Amino acid sequence: MRKYIAEFLGTFMLVFLGTGTVVVAKGGTLTIGLAFGLAITIMAYAVGGISGGNFNPGVTVAMMINKRLEVKDGIFYIIAQSLGSIVASAILYVYIHALKLPSDGFGQNDFSVISTAQAFGVELLATFLFVFIILMVTSVKYGNAMMAPLAIGLALAFLIIVTLNLTGGSLNAARSLGPALFAGGTALSHYWVYLIAPTLGAAIAAFVAKFMGSEEK
Amino acid sequence: MRKYIAEFLGTFMLVFLGTGTVVVAKGGTLTIGLAFGLAITIMAYAVGGISGGNFNPGVTVAMMINKRLEVKDGIFYIIAQSLGSIVASAILYVYIHALKLPSDGFGQNDFSVISTAQAFGVELLATFLFVFIILMVTSVKYGNAMMAPLAIGLALAFLIIVTLNLTGGSLNAARSLGPALFAGGTALSHYWVYLIAPTLGAAIAAFVAKFMGSEEK
Amino acid sequence: MRKYIAEFLGTFMLVFLGTGTVVVAKGGTLTIGLAFGLAITIMAYAVGGISGGNFNPGVTVAMMINKRLEVKDGIFYIIAQSLGSIVASAILYVYIHALKLPSDGFGQNDFSVISTAQAFGVELLATFLFVFIILMVTSVKYGNAMMAPLAIGLALAFLIIVTLNLTGGSLNAARSLGPALFAGGTALSHYWVYLIAPTLGAAIAAFVAKFMGSEEK
Amino acid sequence: MRKYIAEFLGTFMLVFLGTGTVVVAKGGTLTIGLAFGLAITIMAYAVGGISGGNFNPGVTVAMMINKRLEVKDGIFYIIAQSLGSIVASAILYVYIHALKLPSDGFGQNDFSVISTAQAFGVELLATFLFVFIILMVTSVKYGNAMMAPLAIGLALAFLIIVTLNLTGGSLNAARSLGPALFAGGTALSHYWVYLIAPTLGAAIAAFVAKFMGSEEK
Repeated sequence: MRKYIAEFLGTFMLVFLGTGTVVVAKGGTLTIGLAFGLAITIMAYAVGGISGGNFNPGVTVAMMINKRLEVKDGIFYIIAQSLGSIVASAILYVYIHALKLPSDGFGQNDFSVISTAQAFGVELLATFLFVFIILMVTSVKYGNAMMAPLAIGLALAFLIIVTLNLTGGSLNAARSLGPALFAGGTALSHYWVYLIAPTLGAAIAAFVAKFMGSEEK
Repeated sequence: MRKYIAEFLGTFMLVFLGTGTVVVAKGGTLTIGLAFGLAITIMAYAVGGISGGNFNPGVTVAMMINKRLEVKDGIFYIIAQSLGSIVASAILYVYIHALKLPSDGFGQNDFSVISTAQAFGVELLATFLFVFIILMVTSVKYGNAMMAPLAIGLALAFLIIVTLNLTGGSLNAARSLGPALFAGGTALSHYWVYLIAPTLGAAIAAFVAKFMGSEEK
Repeated sequence: MRKYIAEFLGTFMLVFLGTGTVVVAKGGTLTIGLAFGLAITIMAYAVGGISGGNFNPGVTVAMMINKRLEVKDGIFYIIAQSLGSIVASAILYVYIHALKLPSDGFGQNDFSVISTAQAFGVELLATFLFVFIILMVTSVKYGNAMMAPLAIGLALAFLIIVTLNLTGGSLNAARSLGPALFAGGTALSHYWVYLIAPTLGAAIAAFVAKFMGSEEK
Repeated sequence: MRKYIAEFLGTFMLVFLGTGTVVVAKGGTLTIGLAFGLAITIMAYAVGGISGGNFNPGVTVAMMINKRLEVKDGIFYIIAQSLGSIVASAILYVYIHALKLPSDGFGQNDFSVISTAQAFGVELLATFLFVFIILMVTSVKYGNAMMAPLAIGLALAFLIIVTLNLTGGSLNAARSLGPALFAGGTALSHYWVYLIAPTLGAAIAAFVAKFMGSEEK
């Protein structure tokens, strides 16, 4: 039970700090990227010892593929992550209304200028890179347990910064879920891109990282 | 005696760097958040080995609840923290006047757009998250002594960034005290919110963290 | 083979995050510097254990001079780094066009106000400092394996920030290659400066670091 | 000899990155603070094992008072630090002219709105806090050798940010020397404040840190 709560709290923090920085704090590019990324760093240090600190369905899928996580646990992880995202968006909803902020801004992920294929491609690529990094820095042979949460958080921060103007920078199907449910519109109708592309990128990362030695002792 | 001086200096640094960045340096959102957060990081590395590096009455209350700190020490810690905040505000007062800055700006915490209940709620939630993280990263079983001060400081930084436009982002009854005494007005009449909400959030964190295993060996 | 892929991926990440932050994210000075620098930090934590994490022909040359790397490996490293830079630029090219961004902006390195000699000098000096730092923090006697990737990334970040308005801040012949090929014009005709000056600075760093004890046990 | 070169290079880097970020990169408050602070972090990781990584006459004085450094070495350290500052300013001078920047801007420390006594006070206080932190994080009993350079650099960064609008944020007699010689005017006639106040603050820190246990085993 504790590990599912850990996954809930970690993903809650990601969406609370990340989309809160976008909508409530109206942070700049660097602030937004760091808020999302360092939320992962902080929660991985805090509860990573309990659940492994996935906080992302794509990461959970990759961990299941490389047999670091049992499938039963993985399914409950993804449910807990999704709930964390929805609860964080619900709490922010109260404050977005209190501040009389535009009622369509929930820090949702979406794309408008680029094509669906291009959005799919960049989410797939960015999540591939992100999950590949995670699997390497947490590997027995090449990893660094002490610094892994920092490296992972900084990777997420700057991958989000680069993709912010393209897809809003999700790399995480759970992170996109809560805001999309509250925002509706194209954020919800495009949600399938944020569900499938990061998950596919993460699955590919599982195989590439394994080839690079991430599962060796 | 040394440990009370450590708590004084740590909270002094928090208010000196944090509210100094708001008022004297006129920093942006990220700079302000990092100034408060990294002040805790720096002082926890410097004097955390002497006092435990609480620098926050809520943290001290949580540490007493989970029996990591004796009640007698805890009371003197809170007095030292309060004095640190007041002395830092007094020194900044001199420079605020020298720079001819607006006489109502002391980096005090206050709220105006949102309701008192909403302000109470966000301070309670943010401090709950903050103190929960502290108790986990400093726990014997799941903690990481080397990186704990960095994780704690980054958590404070981004929790302040998200709450800055709501309550000014206190999460700390001592941090709010000094500036409120110098600013007066609603910052002082609202001080009870910053006294009770963070302390209550911290107390709840003590129980939740214990449930998650923070006190296990 | 794995180590060449590691060098490819590391340099890909450097150009993807770094020039992506310049062109697609339109980040400020600090964001740009940190994107380049922390790309190195992240990838050194991720795959540094496989290849040593050079991601820079100058670093590879210095490692060969100080016999930390065999010449055969070094040559393949430089080829892999160059390919990583070109592929990253090619992918960004697609999104630069999709966003209808100015067709001459690829985050290429160039100089216009200062003279060629001054550009050569600053790239040589900055890369000398950068590679000297790398050789020291990864040395057996004086180094710190745990923190080396962070120190190296922060060094690159701020050396790029200082040189951004002078030469665009390359310090890396591979990093300049991809964007120059896509941008053409003076970025390509000036490429020899970015090829020779950083490499020369790195070679000098190899000797100075050795004098300072970087190769002692 | 190596340790004097280490002190030269460290202080060179502090002035090159720090004042270069002010003048050439025209960085914002956070960028400037981090450039100075993280220059110390980087060089402490790189050559701290050789010289102890003082890079500041005040730190050297404090180290001599607490008998961590011999007086003869201390004197040569201060000479090396001063030379590092002057050489960095000389190199930046070339590029400041090449960029046709205002000929009075060398990133010098000065004060105009506040009184001399107030400037003296804030430099003394900030350097006291800075050197106290250094002595604690590098102490045998309470220190943390792995993280000390990061804590020290972040302390300098935010102490400079808070004091930037008051005195330009020196905290270091060597850092102020080079730019003052090139800028002349009040930066030079006020130099005695930057020579004496930080040194006095550092000396006081030596005694306070000793009382707090910095020299205990």
